[in-house]
Amino acid sequence: MNSIDINHRSLGASPSAEGQTHFQVWAPYANSVAVVLPETGERFALKRLDRGYWGGLSAKAQSGTRYGYELDGENFLPDPASLAQPDGLSGPSQVKDLSDFQWTDSAWVNTPLKDFIIYELHTGTFSPEGNFQGLEAKLAHLKQLGITAIEIMPVASFPGERNWGYDGVFPYAVQESYGGAEGLQKLVNACHDHGLAVILDVVYNHFGPEGNVLDKFGPYFTEKYHTPWGSAINFDDAGSDAVRKYFIENTLMWFRDFHVDALRLDATHAMKDLGPVHILKEIRQQVDFLSANSGRQHYLIAEVDLNDNRYITPTGEGGYGMDAQWIDEFHHALRVTSGNDRSGYYADFDGINHLAKAFRDAYVYDGQYSPHRDKSFGSSAEGLPGERFVVFSQNHDHVGNRMLGERTGNLVSFEMQKVLAATVLVSPYLPLLFMGEEYGEKNPFLYFVDHQGPELIQAVREGRKREFAAFVREGEEVPDPQAESSFQNSKLNWKLLKNKQHAALLRYYQKLIGFRKTISALSHPDRSALSVDVFEAKQVLFLSRWHGSDYIRCVFNFSGKEESVQIDFGADSWKLLMNSREKQWLGNSENPKEIYQPNSITLPPETFMMFRNDHV
Amino acid sequence: MNSIDINHRSLGASPSAEGQTHFQVWAPYANSVAVVLPETGERFALKRLDRGYWGGLSAKAQSGTRYGYELDGENFLPDPASLAQPDGLSGPSQVKDLSDFQWTDSAWVNTPLKDFIIYELHTGTFSPEGNFQGLEAKLAHLKQLGITAIEIMPVASFPGERNWGYDGVFPYAVQESYGGAEGLQKLVNACHDHGLAVILDVVYNHFGPEGNVLDKFGPYFTEKYHTPWGSAINFDDAGSDAVRKYFIENTLMWFRDFHVDALRLDATHAMKDLGPVHILKEIRQQVDFLSANSGRQHYLIAEVDLNDNRYITPTGEGGYGMDAQWIDEFHHALRVTSGNDRSGYYADFDGINHLAKAFRDAYVYDGQYSPHRDKSFGSSAEGLPGERFVVFSQNHDHVGNRMLGERTGNLVSFEMQKVLAATVLVSPYLPLLFMGEEYGEKNPFLYFVDHQGPELIQAVREGRKREFAAFVREGEEVPDPQAESSFQNSKLNWKLLKNKQHAALLRYYQKLIGFRKTISALSHPDRSALSVDVFEAKQVLFLSRWHGSDYIRCVFNFSGKEESVQIDFGADSWKLLMNSREKQWLGNSENPKEIYQPNSITLPPETFMMFRNDHV
Repeated sequence: MNSIDINHRSLGASPSAEGQTHFQVWAPYANSVAVVLPETGERFALKRLDRGYWGGLSAKAQSGTRYGYELDGENFLPDPASLAQPDGLSGPSQVKDLSDFQWTDSAWVNTPLKDFIIYELHTGTFSPEGNFQGLEAKLAHLKQLGITAIEIMPVASFPGERNWGYDGVFPYAVQESYGGAEGLQKLVNACHDHGLAVILDVVYNHFGPEGNVLDKFGPYFTEKYHTPWGSAINFDDAGSDAVRKYFIENTLMWFRDFHVDALRLDATHAMKDLGPVHILKEIRQQVDFLSANSGRQHYLIAEVDLNDNRYITPTGEGGYGMDAQWIDEFHHALRVTSGNDRSGYYADFDGINHLAKAFRDAYVYDGQYSPHRDKSFGSSAEGLPGERFVVFSQNHDHVGNRMLGERTGNLVSFEMQKVLAATVLVSPYLPLLFMGEEYGEKNPFLYFVDHQGPELIQAVREGRKREFAAFVREGEEVPDPQAESSFQNSKLNWKLLKNKQHAALLRYYQKLIGFRKTISALSHPDRSALSVDVFEAKQVLFLSRWHGSDYIRCVFNFSGKEESVQIDFGADSWKLLMNSREKQWLGNSENPKEIYQPNSITLPPETFMMFRNDHV
Repeated sequence: MNSIDINHRSLGASPSAEGQTHFQVWAPYANSVAVVLPETGERFALKRLDRGYWGGLSAKAQSGTRYGYELDGENFLPDPASLAQPDGLSGPSQVKDLSDFQWTDSAWVNTPLKDFIIYELHTGTFSPEGNFQGLEAKLAHLKQLGITAIEIMPVASFPGERNWGYDGVFPYAVQESYGGAEGLQKLVNACHDHGLAVILDVVYNHFGPEGNVLDKFGPYFTEKYHTPWGSAINFDDAGSDAVRKYFIENTLMWFRDFHVDALRLDATHAMKDLGPVHILKEIRQQVDFLSANSGRQHYLIAEVDLNDNRYITPTGEGGYGMDAQWIDEFHHALRVTSGNDRSGYYADFDGINHLAKAFRDAYVYDGQYSPHRDKSFGSSAEGLPGERFVVFSQNHDHVGNRMLGERTGNLVSFEMQKVLAATVLVSPYLPLLFMGEEYGEKNPFLYFVDHQGPELIQAVREGRKREFAAFVREGEEVPDPQAESSFQNSKLNWKLLKNKQHAALLRYYQKLIGFRKTISALSHPDRSALSVDVFEAKQVLFLSRWHGSDYIRCVFNFSGKEESVQIDFGADSWKLLMNSREKQWLGNSENPKEIYQPNSITLPPETFMMFRNDHV
């Protein structure tokens, strides 16, 4: 195990109050390492420390000073642990004092994980300004919507000014065009002022294809494994102690110096580690030390598509101890149920029965043979609470990986949008919305980049064309990811909120979120207090949830036809809480608020209804 | 999870009592599969079953019939699940009826794992005959020695007639030159008659470089991982269900049809599997079903060099459930302590302190930084009983991987051989001896092969030369692995037993083994009832073990000098049970059988002494 100081970054440039800056870098390949300050031409050698580390102290550099490293007197390279790249990825790094920011959130207490209602957003396209400041201006909207946490897509410095964030190459440096480190600190502070938790998406499974200097410093990569991005990050091969430390200290920095409440760890299935202590487990342990020390709760949420319960099992029970994981399978089952064709990874999903299984068992594949993968897939999620799982009806991936980046608002009817929203928000899992879905945004969320190298630009363009060659229809064109228009066209169109239908959808979301927060049968993600019935031929799903004496009955009609189903509501009398076809949501139903005791329900096409037992 | 019938092989050729033979093969690449019988020219098509399997029944083939498969009417290939390759690896397979053998071991009850005293042997070089029959002729010797289990190096069909066994390519087919399937069944039956358990070494982590036809049938390999042998066996990629089944059914066959008592799984660290159910765990589960069904206990012993407690942790506690694992670190620490230079993997071992740690903690590296690996290595073995670990002072690898294949008998003094033997046999782990060490065999155990392809022969020769280029001394030559002499020179020289010194060493081993079996403080591999003290400057180690009121004190002097040490033996009086320098072991000490109450002991150079409390 690495020895980690949870209270301080050891890597990179750390200015002290005395006007000196301490430098430390891992450069096991080098025979000499010097710090170079290009603004003054100063140059001073670092001292060789144990196991490939180099360190030194200088009074020549202060917060704001640009610097880089020279290895063996030859290269001028930015710092792998750079906190800022003011002149771009290939320019010098910049010394930053992260303790400069004046926090006002000392009263903030992290939201309990079970109460997370997550709103995923991309800083560049969420607001007209496309930065943290623009984002901050929209916090009132989010607060009003009722969500409890925002999830910010990756902000580590990436090539150019337009990127989803997954091409980042300096995991410690906040993208300059978003507002840099201070901008992010200010945003988190403002979120806490608004009572919102902040989840930051971080990428520890690969680096972007441009501007990556790490392999000049040391064995950050290993040939032991292959991943979609080439050789894997070295978490278990020779030299891996330092690589692990590099990421662990990054994790701690976001929590400690940026007051982030949770991290969303991208594609953790691609973090290959066959050592006895998986890197995720070590991250968990170190983050727990920090939590114990700070008194603040820090959550770790993994994206992982292995249906392997080990990721979300506590470390004491042989697991990696992640607090929660994304489950794409809920999404896939839901989308097939709502009419998506069964191509690609949807091939494994049969629609409403799999949606019922997702409600019941979290993992749809928990050991069965998966035709798409051509192997048995998954393990059982039995015994794991609902708050271990994050569900959604769309997210950046499933929207943006479509050729035309259509959001749900452009793919399904207005009525079906309301049914999808309900499915996610009444689930016994943590719901996640993708920015704009709450009012049915019509703009696409396209794949966009701003690469600098012409060859890479060409390769990305052609790769995208190849990917969609089979799908392009007469008169269509694969949007150019490098074009600024792809980015501009992906921005939210906030003017839609003035439109009656979009405003109604927003109110509908607000109402549902309000129910989720106030009705105990909904607010407790308790998978054991739940039953699901399916009327397969009618495409109707019936979900019951309860907590104590509070009972909720939800009926979803995913079909395009009116359907009548026999449902045993028991002896209680029931109140209709929500009908997605009500006039107030611009549906075409009456608004029947009276007490119900239904045994047979007739549901209009594409409808959601929710009942609550009357004696609560 | 695969559905496995624990009572029958589904793969390969299975003759029935009615004179028909059922064929089944996994060939997902093929569009047609036919069975061809070269002796008669018969040819019949198999029927396509689910998921790439093909099957059919024929009255044309019986036990003894030669056969092969034709894929898409083009290749004639032996069966991946062949039970016999009578004409060599590239010849046809042969139908076998494994139920023909008349077992007489119905009264046999497997030895409890904690009582395993293991003797590793190589069938080809153990006896003059070099086969199972020759081996059987030596069982009386082994019984007399006192060991309780023999471990047979791999017997799966390999190229030619001389091989350690790790170049096998037909995991189901017993090497013809050893005596084939019937020969092995007869041997196991004879072992059980002698009261000896049988451990079979099996290789599930790679195939040999010659004669492997599996990749013509299906995706047995994956590019996801790199191993020392190239791409890894596919345990978790597309198609892996069938590959897993292929190895699981192999495991079950050895237990069920050959009455083997334990398997030693070679190099399990190279069985790469990042799925939710590690292949070792699934093997464990299926073997447990078989045990429950048969009423016989079946053990799984893994070779693994990861110091990862997961391998030997029960499946219910998040582990893979192996019964035991080899620990090379005990060997490495012991060899450095006894004078081996610290080159290669020995560099990590400092001698006697690490030996003490191996006694205390099983794993020497349980999380510390390992310079040789350049990373932190290992996890804690706390709480795992001693019977989870197999230790040795030499084995086929550490002997045979030396350029000249010298056994311990040629590397250390006669006196030190006795000290090494004691270290292993009084340890709280399962001891393993390598054939011949019990009488100090002088012949080497060289690396030998009998490859058929000239290019491969040349490559292996040159690889071996390259490997040892830095070690060859004036007048020495790297032995030619392909030369028959390398094999012949590696055979045990049983005539040595007529020599007084070798005979004395054998009696010494017998005596120690007898103690281990009869003294409860030694026979219980209880790691919690143990203490170790080290006199580092004197190279003396003091080990106490106890069980109930039975106490044992062992003192080892690894130095070449007489050493006096102060040892607190407590108030008890003690009997000297064993002194390796006694005259009966051809040492030069008196034979002091009187009662001791020593607090200061003077030890001759290279000595082992063992005391027992007198009141037992």
